[in-house]
Amino acid sequence: MKFVCSKTNLVNGLQIVSKAVPGKTTMSILQCILIDTTTGVIKLVANDSELGIETLVEGNIVDRGIVAIDAKIFSDIVRKLPDNDVSVETQNTDGNIKVYISCENAKFTILGRGGEDFTYLPEMDRVDGIEISQYTLKNAIAQTIFAAGSINESNRMMSGELFCVNGNVLKLVTLDGHRIAIRNVELAKEYPSKKIVIPAKSLNEISKILSDSTESMVKIYSSDKNIMFEFDDTVVVARILEGDYFNVDQMLSSDYETKLTINRREFMNCIDRSTLLVKEGDKRPIIVAIDDSNLEIKINTALGSMDEKVRINKQGKDVQIGFNPKFLMDALRAIDDEEIDMYLVNPKAPCFIKDEKSSYIYLILPVNFATVR
Amino acid sequence: MKFVCSKTNLVNGLQIVSKAVPGKTTMSILQCILIDTTTGVIKLVANDSELGIETLVEGNIVDRGIVAIDAKIFSDIVRKLPDNDVSVETQNTDGNIKVYISCENAKFTILGRGGEDFTYLPEMDRVDGIEISQYTLKNAIAQTIFAAGSINESNRMMSGELFCVNGNVLKLVTLDGHRIAIRNVELAKEYPSKKIVIPAKSLNEISKILSDSTESMVKIYSSDKNIMFEFDDTVVVARILEGDYFNVDQMLSSDYETKLTINRREFMNCIDRSTLLVKEGDKRPIIVAIDDSNLEIKINTALGSMDEKVRINKQGKDVQIGFNPKFLMDALRAIDDEEIDMYLVNPKAPCFIKDEKSSYIYLILPVNFATVR
Repeated sequence: MKFVCSKTNLVNGLQIVSKAVPGKTTMSILQCILIDTTTGVIKLVANDSELGIETLVEGNIVDRGIVAIDAKIFSDIVRKLPDNDVSVETQNTDGNIKVYISCENAKFTILGRGGEDFTYLPEMDRVDGIEISQYTLKNAIAQTIFAAGSINESNRMMSGELFCVNGNVLKLVTLDGHRIAIRNVELAKEYPSKKIVIPAKSLNEISKILSDSTESMVKIYSSDKNIMFEFDDTVVVARILEGDYFNVDQMLSSDYETKLTINRREFMNCIDRSTLLVKEGDKRPIIVAIDDSNLEIKINTALGSMDEKVRINKQGKDVQIGFNPKFLMDALRAIDDEEIDMYLVNPKAPCFIKDEKSSYIYLILPVNFATVR
Repeated sequence: MKFVCSKTNLVNGLQIVSKAVPGKTTMSILQCILIDTTTGVIKLVANDSELGIETLVEGNIVDRGIVAIDAKIFSDIVRKLPDNDVSVETQNTDGNIKVYISCENAKFTILGRGGEDFTYLPEMDRVDGIEISQYTLKNAIAQTIFAAGSINESNRMMSGELFCVNGNVLKLVTLDGHRIAIRNVELAKEYPSKKIVIPAKSLNEISKILSDSTESMVKIYSSDKNIMFEFDDTVVVARILEGDYFNVDQMLSSDYETKLTINRREFMNCIDRSTLLVKEGDKRPIIVAIDDSNLEIKINTALGSMDEKVRINKQGKDVQIGFNPKFLMDALRAIDDEEIDMYLVNPKAPCFIKDEKSSYIYLILPVNFATVR
């Protein structure tokens, strides 16, 4: 096999497929990237069976063929080559596959492997694909993924993110037992209903290779085992989590006793300052006291005390409620609005941060500060 | 005590003096910053006895006084305050000193200490001070300090940097037993001769607070125990290393068998690529083969092999010589010239990289590759 392409193209392609190369594994073939030029295009593939990525690199094929190369060594070498055309050539000698990588005066030789042990991406039907801009999908993932539970969670579904299509709305949902994050994204047209749970870990890697373009689209297809994202010259297939996701609608409520409007930035800065006096690892909640015109945060630790008021608009009852400051911060960071609305019932009931059309809903469970103090 | 100043000024002042606050210490007073407003200026001081820094902060003093405050907590709080005027006030109650820090609606209270245990900077005579721009000093330090030995070095003088004044030249020298770095900086006028060895650790902190300004000057004074740097509103005093520095001139030589001129950037990129196939921790030298028109680097490891030629201009003999690639890279990075000259004698003699007027001299000992292979 031999092909020539620009260093930039090859680096980009390798960066994309490397997202599906696991950091640690005992199976060395999983740490390889397959280069397949047998079909007349330069195709890079990586696949760890949870997540598989395939992308095309523009260039000239001199000799068609297949080789699997260690992803890390190959990427390191290509990244440090001069900014010029790179030639990649393989040669079989005595059962060994030698890979020659050259660019200007630099010549590297490393060992490659045949493609026999390599698993390609599963075949999938491209029917009923929903379409969404890369920017919108990337954003909606970033604005929800932080609330997914860790992989070690007792309930495995918590480590996933729900993709739910209903008419012309794509709803993304994550939860971890202490909070729920929901984004509703409007699609350009109506689609058949669909519910899929994708491991947050896979989705995180996918969001890294989505561009910020509002023009360029992603097509999303699914089967009962996999979900496929197709965009630019890239195809990503992720194994889905089988089983039923939580009935989230049941956990939401529109009743409230207190509604307040607060400047998001001021609230975040105030929370940020309130955690200064808390030592790392100390799970102390912050106590938020709401009266007619102020939200006040007070904290008192061995290091000192802090007290700050933020102006608010309030309807309903006064209330004092305790929160894990990280959960509040995560939700506030995921919102773009300058002013946000918070809905509270009492110190033991969930708090909601949401906009009027429910394009986002963040539910956060309070912390019982009476027992903590 | 009470004073009011802008957050920006206070953050800047704290950043400067914090460089003299040790990361770890059993003496908690060393982790404090002293605020002294008794003389009508807001003076911040930190001093760990190796290095002491004092700086002035612009602001209004309402009540003169002294307080010592934990550097980390105080800096963290101030850094996160809104961008506005900050008020710092102390109050003695029941033998405790409370420090109130407030800015807009944010109010912090932390404990302070009296200044009794705090050691001020040693007094020094301001005579025979040499003057140099902050930019020039900062640069000359950066271009030499990397070759100083570590503090654990058997020979303590290796962990220092020589400041040597001779006529109108300031010479900075570091060495670690494998290499020497020398910078000769021209001063605006002649000064009495002087030789001082400053711990590289202290010099590193000082260079962090020097600005990049070619206009603004540093004045340097010394006694037999200390060296003082005075610039902007800041005074830095560092303990010096007592004893004789190495006779470096004896180690330099202008004889050579091979002289070559090479593009610095191309040489660096080539070295950088040659180390790709070397696993971390493997102290394998790179073998540099010099013939009439090329410098060739070859490397062969378990991961693969690499070979690259860089065009050179050469006078004298062909030679093959082994180097620790890090030492070459450190020296090349410290030079600004596009083309550099290397002087070689044989594979066992030191190699020199220097310019014609010796504004920089980098000596690197080769590695005996015959025995390594």
